[in-house]
Amino acid sequence: MKDISRNLTMLCDFYELTMANGYFKSGIGEKISYFDVFYRSNPDDAGFAIAAGLEQVIEYINDLHFDDDDIEYLRSKGLFDDAFLDYLRTFKFTGDIYAVTEGTVIFPGEPIMTVRAKAIEAQFIETYVLLLLNHQSMIATKANRIVRAAEGRAISEFGSRRAQGADGAILGARAAYIAGCAGTACTIADEAFGVPATGTMAHSWVQMFPDEYTAFKTYCECYPENATLLVDTYDVLGSGIPNAIRAFKEVLVPKGIKKCGIRLDSGDITYLTKKARKMLDEAGLDYCKIVVSNSLDEFIIGDIIRQGAKVDAFGVGERLITSKSNPVFGGVYKLCAVEESDGTITPKIKISENAAKVTTPHFKKVYRLYSNDDMKAEADLICVFDETVDDTKPLEIFDPVHTWKRKLLTNFTARELLVPIFKDGKQVYNLPSIHEIREHCKREIDFLWDEVLRFENPHNYYVDLSQKLWDIKNDMLHKMRKTER
Amino acid sequence: MKDISRNLTMLCDFYELTMANGYFKSGIGEKISYFDVFYRSNPDDAGFAIAAGLEQVIEYINDLHFDDDDIEYLRSKGLFDDAFLDYLRTFKFTGDIYAVTEGTVIFPGEPIMTVRAKAIEAQFIETYVLLLLNHQSMIATKANRIVRAAEGRAISEFGSRRAQGADGAILGARAAYIAGCAGTACTIADEAFGVPATGTMAHSWVQMFPDEYTAFKTYCECYPENATLLVDTYDVLGSGIPNAIRAFKEVLVPKGIKKCGIRLDSGDITYLTKKARKMLDEAGLDYCKIVVSNSLDEFIIGDIIRQGAKVDAFGVGERLITSKSNPVFGGVYKLCAVEESDGTITPKIKISENAAKVTTPHFKKVYRLYSNDDMKAEADLICVFDETVDDTKPLEIFDPVHTWKRKLLTNFTARELLVPIFKDGKQVYNLPSIHEIREHCKREIDFLWDEVLRFENPHNYYVDLSQKLWDIKNDMLHKMRKTER
Repeated sequence: MKDISRNLTMLCDFYELTMANGYFKSGIGEKISYFDVFYRSNPDDAGFAIAAGLEQVIEYINDLHFDDDDIEYLRSKGLFDDAFLDYLRTFKFTGDIYAVTEGTVIFPGEPIMTVRAKAIEAQFIETYVLLLLNHQSMIATKANRIVRAAEGRAISEFGSRRAQGADGAILGARAAYIAGCAGTACTIADEAFGVPATGTMAHSWVQMFPDEYTAFKTYCECYPENATLLVDTYDVLGSGIPNAIRAFKEVLVPKGIKKCGIRLDSGDITYLTKKARKMLDEAGLDYCKIVVSNSLDEFIIGDIIRQGAKVDAFGVGERLITSKSNPVFGGVYKLCAVEESDGTITPKIKISENAAKVTTPHFKKVYRLYSNDDMKAEADLICVFDETVDDTKPLEIFDPVHTWKRKLLTNFTARELLVPIFKDGKQVYNLPSIHEIREHCKREIDFLWDEVLRFENPHNYYVDLSQKLWDIKNDMLHKMRKTER
Repeated sequence: MKDISRNLTMLCDFYELTMANGYFKSGIGEKISYFDVFYRSNPDDAGFAIAAGLEQVIEYINDLHFDDDDIEYLRSKGLFDDAFLDYLRTFKFTGDIYAVTEGTVIFPGEPIMTVRAKAIEAQFIETYVLLLLNHQSMIATKANRIVRAAEGRAISEFGSRRAQGADGAILGARAAYIAGCAGTACTIADEAFGVPATGTMAHSWVQMFPDEYTAFKTYCECYPENATLLVDTYDVLGSGIPNAIRAFKEVLVPKGIKKCGIRLDSGDITYLTKKARKMLDEAGLDYCKIVVSNSLDEFIIGDIIRQGAKVDAFGVGERLITSKSNPVFGGVYKLCAVEESDGTITPKIKISENAAKVTTPHFKKVYRLYSNDDMKAEADLICVFDETVDDTKPLEIFDPVHTWKRKLLTNFTARELLVPIFKDGKQVYNLPSIHEIREHCKREIDFLWDEVLRFENPHNYYVDLSQKLWDIKNDMLHKMRKTER
């Protein structure tokens, strides 16, 4: 696999450094702190999201260090103490990280990563950890919607040219594959991550030859086993499809090759694919596949399938690679506890005028509770770190806002979501292959009720707090708040 | 400046490689071809866009090469001829590139870059050139809207954690600065590109201390010259502002320091900033600045300024760094001509069911026409490469669709927009500094009428074709089209 990594230790908000220097100077830099990564609402008002990006977080943490150039750059700012800059020379991550594995279904408000480390270390990694998890989780979530809309037809990720930066293209292709896409047009995503790269042709191929037929014939001769011809350079029905049929018949049919296709990149897909299918069938090419592209997303794909469009595969570009309908994934990184010198863990909370911005305090664990009847996920339960759910006994869970909404779970299985990734700065998690992650993601979707999978107005999956955690949070809220609303 | 570049030659759509191999095999790989980069509509239905990303295109072109690993990866696909793979070993760009400089105002339909090179070279660079120009042009365009909405108040770019990949954050910060932002929170964008990095503190700083007052006092002691305190961790009016006032009075006032600020990151900005301003003024801190953040964009900023919010500076995050309201910039790369062996240039066109997707053929140049009365730009005129606009004589221009809409320009100055960047593979353009680009961008905005600058329903700036070019395009359209609509 090609290594395309860079040392991006300096990809941090500047305040991570000013705060680090401040912690260092005020003697609390080594105080053990707990930070949670969580997000507040599902993209596209959907019922869930999919976690991705952990592999790149691990790579970043393992490589975390400041070069001499970085230190000299920081010195030039005139803000940092020499002792702090010296400290940065040997800076590395020595703490613990727990996280939800890639491809796992996640819900708002629950920790998807918890970092336990010295204050400076735990604080410093905020920016890039968030960037990595936010970006790939967003793309995986969007890509999975598009994959589900296609009802079994293959989705190829085509969006590199419209991606927001190189990593947007490359890691976006990775996340899209995890979420179920069949492949990508992004060559380096194949070389570096093993996402299968595929491609057809551009309009320029067709224009480069004296006429469309010659362009098609030449392509079939070059790639007899992989000929998908782009038929909309001049006139789809008037010349594109007739010339494609002629090229297939002259080059592929005599060789007995039945693997071939046409691609449409403009016009009305429902109308044109129905016409195209008829023309191809009448020419004896009922095996010829029809691939379409052109600003597709889950809604257009769902619509044209319902209209009976004759499509075998989709190329999806800009709306997938930028998650156009919801291009921000709002994961945040919040202090939830600190450890006193005697080992006691003191919960910390952040309050806000916006109730949605209030954090859930404490070092926590998350259980996913599955019904033993159908192995569908029924609820997630966030507990204090020292609690254990006993799934051999009935468990009453309740809505953390409308606490009168309660449910008694019997006959269920509890599974912990956060797994150890780093312990004392050492990676303790073995990276799965990208193909294993993709399979895991597929299984995760199977655990969800159809009601949660619905695109519009899905069922609100329960993410509840244990009674102990709810009591701690409620007490802190009442104690900290002084102003009347 | 820190070098954070990587060789991203392999960041290409896979079809660039299959087409290249096909051109190579069919003997047309060396045919001189002309490709235009242009875009079809302005983001956010605005009146214009701003070009950015050229510096990274130049870096990419200069570094274009395949490593041994790349060649072996390609060989493993079983699609490419050995002779072609050998050819790739010494592949480099040997052609010409003309482009609009960074920070320049651009309009739909006009070439912002033209590439003249051997077919394989010109085709191959499509994907990453588009990615780079699309991404930074989009962010510059969005950032400039936000800067203009703030009416002189500083905008800091804060969005790294929500960016779509590392380059989304880093080059996004660069583009935002070009477009007028005062700085960024992204440290590496300062180290690598000289975008001024600034920062305040996170909520975790406040939570890390025994109480809010101690957190603020400690920060003021660490950074007496740069103390902007985040006042919404617990209770803005009940504790945040009173504690900030106390810390300023105890630490800064005795030192005679008047540079200080507070930051609000939640709640109703208009309400809270008015209250905050009053509390600060009454405490004798009328010089204390108020900085706000929290999902801002040009519309919210314009609204709260109209409501009389007391804001001195804005931190803008996710909606800028992802161009949330319009996260795709649709630049395309289209063949517009080929050169015959005798040097004749043959125009090429791409037709489409979607009229907006029809290309303008030929090797072209673009003039911007300024009124000598006020030096405002009146129209852009796209001509065939061998035409020259004589701005000492009156010029009649006309709408290319509604050709009865005509305008006679007198007393105007014509300036060519595309400048030579590469000649025979050698860079012939000297890169301006990022600060020079930012100044250029500022002047470019000054050239526009207010009517074009308007956010909603702006005046449609004229981008016209010369009579000669219009005739060529019209003839080709009528000749190529066979199907009735």
